[in-house]
Amino acid sequence: MNEVIKQLMEHRSIRKFTDVPLDQSTVKLLVEAAQHASTSSFVQAYSIIGVTDPDIKHELSLIGTQNFIEHNGHLFVFVADFKRHQLLSERAGLDAQPFIGATERFIVGTVDASLAAQNLAVAAESMGLGICYVGGLRNDMAKVIELLKLPEFTYPLFGMVAGYPAQQGSKKERLPFDHVYHENRYVIDGDYMQQIEDYDRSIAEYYRTRTAGERVDTWSQQMVGKVRGNAREEIDSTVKRQGFLSQK
Amino acid sequence: MNEVIKQLMEHRSIRKFTDVPLDQSTVKLLVEAAQHASTSSFVQAYSIIGVTDPDIKHELSLIGTQNFIEHNGHLFVFVADFKRHQLLSERAGLDAQPFIGATERFIVGTVDASLAAQNLAVAAESMGLGICYVGGLRNDMAKVIELLKLPEFTYPLFGMVAGYPAQQGSKKERLPFDHVYHENRYVIDGDYMQQIEDYDRSIAEYYRTRTAGERVDTWSQQMVGKVRGNAREEIDSTVKRQGFLSQK
Repeated sequence: MNEVIKQLMEHRSIRKFTDVPLDQSTVKLLVEAAQHASTSSFVQAYSIIGVTDPDIKHELSLIGTQNFIEHNGHLFVFVADFKRHQLLSERAGLDAQPFIGATERFIVGTVDASLAAQNLAVAAESMGLGICYVGGLRNDMAKVIELLKLPEFTYPLFGMVAGYPAQQGSKKERLPFDHVYHENRYVIDGDYMQQIEDYDRSIAEYYRTRTAGERVDTWSQQMVGKVRGNAREEIDSTVKRQGFLSQK
Repeated sequence: MNEVIKQLMEHRSIRKFTDVPLDQSTVKLLVEAAQHASTSSFVQAYSIIGVTDPDIKHELSLIGTQNFIEHNGHLFVFVADFKRHQLLSERAGLDAQPFIGATERFIVGTVDASLAAQNLAVAAESMGLGICYVGGLRNDMAKVIELLKLPEFTYPLFGMVAGYPAQQGSKKERLPFDHVYHENRYVIDGDYMQQIEDYDRSIAEYYRTRTAGERVDTWSQQMVGKVRGNAREEIDSTVKRQGFLSQK
């Protein structure tokens, strides 16, 4: 296993940082590393907002309900972005709305922003920085759009905090390889649920050890809890207002 | 700039491979590196299908209309996947359809699969392998679902070919940093279109040099061409049939 793969395997989310900010050259290097990820047909359908204004960071931390959104080395917000494509189309006398409104484009913007973000995460960790994705910004996507003045044909996907770690973080075991990887065909056989049960035992042990027996939990229980939980239903109308998912 | 960041910056898509297959231990290592990417609230909402059956590869290459989909070291298909969450919910007496049908979950599955894919890409390139994403599988998503026997509550996002390169590939300059990265607020000012025009000149020069003057093209022209092009409209009904985007 080479050093890069070792680094990927050692990933853990960091949720506590020193208040030392990333310097501008580091931010620029990280964003450029992000930009070199693959992009669907060269469309580069994303933008990145670096949030340094303490008031905006505070507002965003209230939305994401986590302290580390305010206190970190740098806060990035990844935005799926077809605004530039729309302006270029307008200049060419074309209405881009049907194009951008197609479900395909919602996928493309989401994928492009995600690939860039993961490159940024890998680059940051290679420098000894810690990162954590902040999906919690989708708790109030409309408010994030307002705070960051995001135009039509864009939508904020998630945040990412980066910085100098003030905790170690811990690595969580993933679903079994055989459960996630199939050859040629997706197969649900007798092993499928058994693999989840084996995994549940590992995860239960992880929580038991980390909390001296206090936390009794499995992956399955967590997942069923999520199905019962917050669906973030207002995202649907928000992305539609921004010009997405309007296909008839 | 450290070695990892250098590698990210040197990414180029490879579209021609030797027919030497990746061995099983390499495939497993790559998938495990993929699995260690961040995942939204630990849901791990994706699966990966490795396609080795020559007939299926041939069919997929017809869908993606590119020869390298058939001839490569290994073909991965990334699948957004809430099937396991649905089965666990069913076991707990819960109907997962409203949960999975929410737009939020379409985002989560798409993001999770994308982050895993980008880790796999980085891992492969760190071993000297080449990769290329294959969005072209979305030309006929319904057929991909049929070929790979994908169950309800999953959808195929894109393929990725990996293998031993039989070409060098070439690196394409990205949009200017200042155009993609904004501080605190998304700003469309006088510079915004100017940056695209400067970029157009660079890209025109890239094509001119690579084709000895034959290809006259800019990024803007390409993007406007896309807006005029194939919208892949049937994706909308396909993902809905799979149980996604059914929020009322």
